[in-house]
Amino acid sequence: MKCAGKIDVRDVDESSINIDPIQAGGRLTPEAMKAVIAYGDGYSVCDQCRKPFRLDQIRTPPVDIFHRELAAFVNMDVARVVPGARRGFQAVADTYVQKGDPVLITALSHYTEVLSIEANGGIIREIPKDENNIITADAAAAKIEEVQREFSRPIPLLFIDHFDYQYGNRHQVQEIIRVARQYDIPVLYNGAYTVGILPVDGKELGADFVVGSGHKSMAAPAPSGVLATSSERAAEVFRTTAARADVTGRTFGVKEVGLMGCTLMGVTLIGMMASFPRVQERVKHWDKELSNGNVVVEALRSIQGTKIQSEYPRNHTLTRVDTIGSFDKVAQSHKKRGFFFSNSLKDRGITGIIPGATKVWKYNTYGLTQKQAKYLASSLIEVAEENGIPVNR
Amino acid sequence: MKCAGKIDVRDVDESSINIDPIQAGGRLTPEAMKAVIAYGDGYSVCDQCRKPFRLDQIRTPPVDIFHRELAAFVNMDVARVVPGARRGFQAVADTYVQKGDPVLITALSHYTEVLSIEANGGIIREIPKDENNIITADAAAAKIEEVQREFSRPIPLLFIDHFDYQYGNRHQVQEIIRVARQYDIPVLYNGAYTVGILPVDGKELGADFVVGSGHKSMAAPAPSGVLATSSERAAEVFRTTAARADVTGRTFGVKEVGLMGCTLMGVTLIGMMASFPRVQERVKHWDKELSNGNVVVEALRSIQGTKIQSEYPRNHTLTRVDTIGSFDKVAQSHKKRGFFFSNSLKDRGITGIIPGATKVWKYNTYGLTQKQAKYLASSLIEVAEENGIPVNR
Repeated sequence: MKCAGKIDVRDVDESSINIDPIQAGGRLTPEAMKAVIAYGDGYSVCDQCRKPFRLDQIRTPPVDIFHRELAAFVNMDVARVVPGARRGFQAVADTYVQKGDPVLITALSHYTEVLSIEANGGIIREIPKDENNIITADAAAAKIEEVQREFSRPIPLLFIDHFDYQYGNRHQVQEIIRVARQYDIPVLYNGAYTVGILPVDGKELGADFVVGSGHKSMAAPAPSGVLATSSERAAEVFRTTAARADVTGRTFGVKEVGLMGCTLMGVTLIGMMASFPRVQERVKHWDKELSNGNVVVEALRSIQGTKIQSEYPRNHTLTRVDTIGSFDKVAQSHKKRGFFFSNSLKDRGITGIIPGATKVWKYNTYGLTQKQAKYLASSLIEVAEENGIPVNR
Repeated sequence: MKCAGKIDVRDVDESSINIDPIQAGGRLTPEAMKAVIAYGDGYSVCDQCRKPFRLDQIRTPPVDIFHRELAAFVNMDVARVVPGARRGFQAVADTYVQKGDPVLITALSHYTEVLSIEANGGIIREIPKDENNIITADAAAAKIEEVQREFSRPIPLLFIDHFDYQYGNRHQVQEIIRVARQYDIPVLYNGAYTVGILPVDGKELGADFVVGSGHKSMAAPAPSGVLATSSERAAEVFRTTAARADVTGRTFGVKEVGLMGCTLMGVTLIGMMASFPRVQERVKHWDKELSNGNVVVEALRSIQGTKIQSEYPRNHTLTRVDTIGSFDKVAQSHKKRGFFFSNSLKDRGITGIIPGATKVWKYNTYGLTQKQAKYLASSLIEVAEENGIPVNR
């Protein structure tokens, strides 16, 4: 069925259990869906934009209050909405990174951090992961020392992902930030997999910048996200324009250079706002999410030849699993090859795994009910048993 | 009525004739509204993202085809979607503008162009407008000469708005581009008020870059837009990452640095796509839009003391009007002050003018039916007559 022209209706999240690793936290709430319908048109939140003409100061709808609540939500001083976490990285990197500067990321950092550095001519240096795919404070300290010897200039920025996108592993964020502060290196906390799904306290962590993703973890439409800072850093990252035009003498008000002025003028912002009360509530129930996730992890572990590549026990619902010794063995001789696996799940109403993948793959159980998690777990075991893979009961 | 939490339902464009200057071209089509409902969730267009994992290469929904059609639509070689026209300016300025470089804009340029230059440390130089608020090729040539004398370095970029946001005046774009080419200055054509509402032919104009706004003129949700380039410039602006991580040796595929990788992963893109067939069609009927606009312009001109500040006859539906000698005179002694005017229009189902404004204000009749345009015209005259302002019949 088409919803418009050649575009098929999308009903993945209505008709299936969707365990796509990047989509789980970005499903809209019912409130967001209703708000999206009301605010679909272009500049829909700008009906009552008045002086000084800036998005975060609009009172109706209550965009101004939302900005303050957003800062409080991650316990930082100032927050702005941005078109995706990557645009938060960009605003920060644009402010601090000069050509030739060494910038620290980790061996598990997301590619968008790399792009924000590369765009400014910065030199990427990775903090290595340990044998368990964890970024430790010791590794951070050693790398800082190494980079300081290599470069004759300060390190202007360090990016750290609380949970990485590859394994969903938890890294030593608080300890790494503490180390960085000893060297006066500003730290950007990448909360793409935390802000909106588990509690984040920027001040307790000691972060200079907290970045979150609306479409990844805040039940919002894409592209959306948040960049929150300490008040000290806000004056730098959210600096207002100082330009003065030579002929007309025009100046440009309170527009923020690093954000290119206003950012989310319609449906994306209203979606974030409408989901926000439920998002504020849901972060308190992370334990339940982990518990549901564990039901699935244990089912996978019971399938012989299957390895959880992520840290275990799990601290996140995003998990990377190695089924080379189980489902991939079946794929070798199955007439549908690797597709037998994704098809078998699809037949059971489960979607979100890359079709054909049977070697190493990722999934995310975020947002599943306990019943759905149990169903997913038993489905995985069923598919194993149907294909002659032994299961430890 | 609330649609979610403390957010009022928005029904401005369903219940009123909305002549807001920036909203007219960004109202969703019915097709976009349907697609938005189906694709509201975060990363909704990414269900079938496969290698090489880049937005513009997704086949289902047909994002790849849309990108090619978008380039053809403005007659350029390569196109990418961006989170608003400003992010197109940013990508181009980031590529070409170095600290201390003089960059040309015009006396009527939009502030977002200024920010994209300022963010890169460029120096803003304006091409003056003439006494009719038009940017001429002669003024451009003179300014280029002047800036060349002032700076000992090349001018890396010139921004020209086909129609400006202040007056909706048409500027000598083709002629200015011809002049710029003689000096080897790349030109960015700002089509925020053209792409999606009237025909734009980038190659005929000779532009290096064509930028359009989804939420301003392409019947799409915010933030959205298009950046299209010649094939020569595409290799520069859409350069792919060359970074290689020092520890892991990771490289980052075909991600485009200037865009921060993928840009519009959900509702914004699908809205652009769903509206696109109707947008392709509607640009052919610009004459009808101008003709409807003229009905309103003539009504305003018939109200004594009212001046059309925009060029006349009008070449655009966005118009700036001076009512200091008419409605503002009434406001001086009216108990509701300037609000009498916006209230009187609101009582007639007309909205989109800044409440209280009676001196100089802007409106846009884009998208009105002839019947609505006539109704708006007669409403303006009625409000004038009711308040004792003479009207030339």
